[in-house]
Amino acid sequence: MAIRRTLHPFDLQEFLESRTAAVNTALDSYLPPAKTKPGTIHAAMRYPLFAGGKRMRPAVCLAAATACGGKEAEAMPLACAVECIHTYSLVHDDLPCMDDDDLRRGKPTTHVQFRPSVDAAGRKRGEAVALLAGDALLTQAFEIAAHCRSWPRYSHQDIMLELARTAGSLQLIAGQVADLEGEGRKANLKELRYIHERKTSALLCCSVRLGGMSANCTPAQLKALTDFGYNVGLAFQVIDDILDVTQSSEKLGKTAGKDIKAQKSTYPALIGLKKSRGVAKRLTQEAFKALKPFGKRAVALEALGTFLLNRDY
Amino acid sequence: MAIRRTLHPFDLQEFLESRTAAVNTALDSYLPPAKTKPGTIHAAMRYPLFAGGKRMRPAVCLAAATACGGKEAEAMPLACAVECIHTYSLVHDDLPCMDDDDLRRGKPTTHVQFRPSVDAAGRKRGEAVALLAGDALLTQAFEIAAHCRSWPRYSHQDIMLELARTAGSLQLIAGQVADLEGEGRKANLKELRYIHERKTSALLCCSVRLGGMSANCTPAQLKALTDFGYNVGLAFQVIDDILDVTQSSEKLGKTAGKDIKAQKSTYPALIGLKKSRGVAKRLTQEAFKALKPFGKRAVALEALGTFLLNRDY
Repeated sequence: MAIRRTLHPFDLQEFLESRTAAVNTALDSYLPPAKTKPGTIHAAMRYPLFAGGKRMRPAVCLAAATACGGKEAEAMPLACAVECIHTYSLVHDDLPCMDDDDLRRGKPTTHVQFRPSVDAAGRKRGEAVALLAGDALLTQAFEIAAHCRSWPRYSHQDIMLELARTAGSLQLIAGQVADLEGEGRKANLKELRYIHERKTSALLCCSVRLGGMSANCTPAQLKALTDFGYNVGLAFQVIDDILDVTQSSEKLGKTAGKDIKAQKSTYPALIGLKKSRGVAKRLTQEAFKALKPFGKRAVALEALGTFLLNRDY
Repeated sequence: MAIRRTLHPFDLQEFLESRTAAVNTALDSYLPPAKTKPGTIHAAMRYPLFAGGKRMRPAVCLAAATACGGKEAEAMPLACAVECIHTYSLVHDDLPCMDDDDLRRGKPTTHVQFRPSVDAAGRKRGEAVALLAGDALLTQAFEIAAHCRSWPRYSHQDIMLELARTAGSLQLIAGQVADLEGEGRKANLKELRYIHERKTSALLCCSVRLGGMSANCTPAQLKALTDFGYNVGLAFQVIDDILDVTQSSEKLGKTAGKDIKAQKSTYPALIGLKKSRGVAKRLTQEAFKALKPFGKRAVALEALGTFLLNRDY
């Protein structure tokens, strides 16, 4: 994993490209080869994992390690574990019984890609394969994370608990369920924030925290990273809500107005566009404020935050 | 957790009842209360977990700890983790895109139980809830297991890797996929054993191994426990194949002849009833032979093996 020293002024594109390549190489080495028996499951695990994801969670994880004076190599298993969890959640989210999406990033979703054959009993195989591929990716995340070591301030147990709690029924899955239940009825602002916190902030926050933990960060640094991850995640989601209203599908690169159609509560629907923009701006400021204590070491993290939030909203 | 000292002759019924109660208490304490927000997911996690499962995997895990001179309390988180993995696999296995089963242990399966409402978009909610409940139980398994400590011979990492590898794409999920793909075409004996090893033996084997590891067992003891778990698991599955052919549905407590109907390859279909009985007998003998070195400490493990295999086949 050859990573070039980044020079000031910070070259975000170079950072993203080199880290995506490094993460892909690491993921490839952690997962069983595609032809490992049974071939179907290993092909189906790799298909969504290497479908062109932007690797934003691994990127912030690695950047957080650097911000705390750690080595990216130490954070790599955790960056990969987080990406596996993100990918599994997308695969299951796209299934017919959930969001029933046929396309993601312009490619067929996993259950569509593996749909071609039905078994002797006439059941569609694509859904079963996607279900099991998601299960396998979730399991793989814990296997990969288990490869990490302990640090003076953070035990192996701390790391595993951080990951399991984030992916579990009080965080990531809670967000999915609340989102599902929120459709078709008007949620209030508190409920909406509850969903955003869990669906988006939780895993982003976990990514930067794990990066920091792999650098044996101080409690104060961990708190700052938590604030950064939390606020970036929330701001990102509020901006998404705004763009769903204001942008055309073409500019958005996905179906606009989808939230309104699904009768989902959004920030603009609840408090109007102007106030929503104010909330997004405030959350963004909070996020960057949290990075102050890290000084120049947080240059990558800051650039990633800017990349995520500096959209035309 | 008050556990009575077991006296010779061994009272298996008392052992099973007291351990089931202890495991249920522990599981109840590990899982978020049913009313924890979002209530749907926590109710849906608890529903299949407390639906009357026999707790055989936790039982062999605890008994293996005792066989190696350890304490059941040390093995308890691992026993509970294994049961969560077993339960998640059943919940996902019952889904319409997999085996499409409406009943398990005489009760509605999770997606049927949570079916009543559809959301605004007209999607059935039961399947989504069952999917997420399975995901949450799998995640919960790793959170519970992460509570365990390290032992001189087995690190926290060893424990987590054992669990993740067993549940992953080379073992448990490989078994599901191979089983799915095997339907509708004639598998040979090697392929059938591949499926049985992964669908049944793997998690049983992992249960006894984790029990042993929690007792800081010697490498020789771990090898013996592995042999026991592997052979009991395989024998159990071969006997199941035999009973599916020879027994009536009434006596079996489930639909007989299901394997034939699904065009699944079975031992009797491949090598006939007589030879299948020979295989089951040989595997059973291997299993009990493995327990010899443990002497009287393995009394519970031996009784559990007898309970699992001593069926009228």
